[in-house]
Amino acid sequence: MLQNDKKKIKNVKYAECIRCGRRYEAETELGLCKCGGTLEIQYDYEKMKKEIPREKIEHSSDYSMWRYREMLPVAQGVTVQNMMVGGTPLYRCRMLGEQIGISELYLKDEGRNPTASLKDRASAVGISKARENKKKVVCCASTGNAAASLAGNAAADQLRCVIFVPANISQAKLAQLLIFGAIVFRVDGNYEEAFLLSEQVIERYGWYSRNAGINPFLIEGKKTVAYEICEQLGWQSPDYVAVSVGDGCTIAGIWKGFLDLYELNWIEKLPRLISVQASGCCPVHRSIKEGMVSKAALEGTLADSIAVERPRNREKAVRAMIQSKGLMAEVSDEEILEAMKMMGHSSGVFAEMAGAAALAGVRKLCREGRIEKGKKVVVVVTGNGLKDCSSALKATGQPMEIKPEIQCFDKIAKTLDLC
Amino acid sequence: MLQNDKKKIKNVKYAECIRCGRRYEAETELGLCKCGGTLEIQYDYEKMKKEIPREKIEHSSDYSMWRYREMLPVAQGVTVQNMMVGGTPLYRCRMLGEQIGISELYLKDEGRNPTASLKDRASAVGISKARENKKKVVCCASTGNAAASLAGNAAADQLRCVIFVPANISQAKLAQLLIFGAIVFRVDGNYEEAFLLSEQVIERYGWYSRNAGINPFLIEGKKTVAYEICEQLGWQSPDYVAVSVGDGCTIAGIWKGFLDLYELNWIEKLPRLISVQASGCCPVHRSIKEGMVSKAALEGTLADSIAVERPRNREKAVRAMIQSKGLMAEVSDEEILEAMKMMGHSSGVFAEMAGAAALAGVRKLCREGRIEKGKKVVVVVTGNGLKDCSSALKATGQPMEIKPEIQCFDKIAKTLDLC
Repeated sequence: MLQNDKKKIKNVKYAECIRCGRRYEAETELGLCKCGGTLEIQYDYEKMKKEIPREKIEHSSDYSMWRYREMLPVAQGVTVQNMMVGGTPLYRCRMLGEQIGISELYLKDEGRNPTASLKDRASAVGISKARENKKKVVCCASTGNAAASLAGNAAADQLRCVIFVPANISQAKLAQLLIFGAIVFRVDGNYEEAFLLSEQVIERYGWYSRNAGINPFLIEGKKTVAYEICEQLGWQSPDYVAVSVGDGCTIAGIWKGFLDLYELNWIEKLPRLISVQASGCCPVHRSIKEGMVSKAALEGTLADSIAVERPRNREKAVRAMIQSKGLMAEVSDEEILEAMKMMGHSSGVFAEMAGAAALAGVRKLCREGRIEKGKKVVVVVTGNGLKDCSSALKATGQPMEIKPEIQCFDKIAKTLDLC
Repeated sequence: MLQNDKKKIKNVKYAECIRCGRRYEAETELGLCKCGGTLEIQYDYEKMKKEIPREKIEHSSDYSMWRYREMLPVAQGVTVQNMMVGGTPLYRCRMLGEQIGISELYLKDEGRNPTASLKDRASAVGISKARENKKKVVCCASTGNAAASLAGNAAADQLRCVIFVPANISQAKLAQLLIFGAIVFRVDGNYEEAFLLSEQVIERYGWYSRNAGINPFLIEGKKTVAYEICEQLGWQSPDYVAVSVGDGCTIAGIWKGFLDLYELNWIEKLPRLISVQASGCCPVHRSIKEGMVSKAALEGTLADSIAVERPRNREKAVRAMIQSKGLMAEVSDEEILEAMKMMGHSSGVFAEMAGAAALAGVRKLCREGRIEKGKKVVVVVTGNGLKDCSSALKATGQPMEIKPEIQCFDKIAKTLDLC
């Protein structure tokens, strides 16, 4: 029997291990299951169907992700974090769709979040849970975006923040961390080593863990991307949703969001996922193709946000892909850079490498004829290109140099197709 | 008599020169007045009072700046631009307020716009006007943000975009321009030279000008910041609004927004403006102190967005300051960097130099006792710090290096005040 706690989380039944099925109370701090499996928060959909009419959400004047508060695992009475997370635009991109061969193509621009990536959604829940658990310090290891989002959200809530980053973190992400006042350790090693160190430190010092592969609440924040997509499409699910995959948390979180809405009968069908990994680092795809092995992959890609050699949420990601009859695409750095440029040119959205990877994957699948004609495809742009301008400049080349004289311009103007 | 044109702009009476009072039809392309003065769009407030109840705005489900469409000078029937501009958060920052000595301090985070600066608001109007005027090419000179916003918004609307930038443009802003597919000319000179070249080119080739100091429609986009601030405060004006000043367009635009709402009786009082310039480049302040001279200033500041030696909207900016009984502050680059760090640490908002300058100015005025106790102050954070990470890293220092071993961490942990 689960205890009826004071800090009751409305609509949540329990946390359940996706590997062995063991159940845990949701009203505590949670990590992995005793068996080593990942936990998943389970909701009381029958109760929710009665108590949360869809119209209530529609009429909410809160256009952050907290418009879905009753569907998130934060205890009643807890004030949620301060920043405006979520509420990002979903753009219909006709020209880009035409170029690629998709009749209805949308970009969900997650670079519009407070610290410029989708990770803010998980950190928003993490900060709220840290508050609920009366923690003063939050901690994680990250390739950059999760860390920046935790640091920013922690600053806004006056929590202390300790971050472990791998040696290859971009200058921009580092600048964010330091500006937000986090205590930052650059680990002499890769993401895997930074991750293991962070987990030891979190256990020893009793801090709140924002490692999304371990803490099952965080993925619940990420699911709000799916909620927003469906609400923005008039409570319809697209046919496909493309996401770049590193640790596996984001694709699993997004899938959870669609599942929630489907269980609540708010959408009539589920989308198929498109998982995109860098061809230089695709351990989740290897697991799907070759079975659930945990062989480490090399971090052979410029797309630092998805350069994860040992994905912490491999199981959830693989399960989501199987359940959704998902498609996989692996893309080279060159293909990612090309997609980044294409997206910017024809839609005005500047994606970071990992964000552009999803589009590169869709493009590849289209070329191979694996996405049928007439489909509605949403590409999730997971982070803003301003986080890694040096990669972007590899895609674009340099501007033209000119003397401040109209004669100089006239000469060049003839060579442009503008006049 | 003004002609009753087909492409009638609802609620607009005419454009009027702020220097000589000459009037122009608003239904054409407009630049400077024949006398060289800047034009200003004038509205029919009496008509608007009757036709636009405030409640209509409040209930709009469009939370971009276009929720105020009827108060913007775009002809009826013209589809406005595509990106979601505006709708940025206004954060109440208690801790930051305490640190500085302001009882109610707010940050308006304009870095949340599509291309990460307030300039998107002007470009949104510019792109819509270019459409209205059936232009295929838009053009401007810019220190970076205006250009990036024009390029991004043009890409989303499939317009061609030609940009002239000064030699000192940041890598991030350059990356944005090129990713958005703009044709970029780096002028071998400063902003002033880039500006003059762009104006010659625009005239010769008949492109649409997005030079905000010349085209009077653009400032109308910027005024929506003031609308949002008031709406977010429950249709109240703050006591002070602090803005960093380069060309003068932003502060003048924001002032116009407050004036509109005051004329419509939507707010009961007007705020006082706080104009902040870099001490290394403060020609607008010199004009206020010494009279309307047009002496050029040096561009002696790291805050590239406000390094403008010959402000194009000097007159409007000065008038706004006089009308609002505004305060002035000049801040050094060191003070700006300190404010940037302070803002990030205590609020999670990462401002670029020009964005942080406004806070630095408020801090200075507080120290000098020039802002009374108990006041409500809004600081407009005009752009995102991701646009200039190298400056940010000057403010922060570097992370700690660590081996991936818990023993190494334990040693350092004792020196932190966390455990």
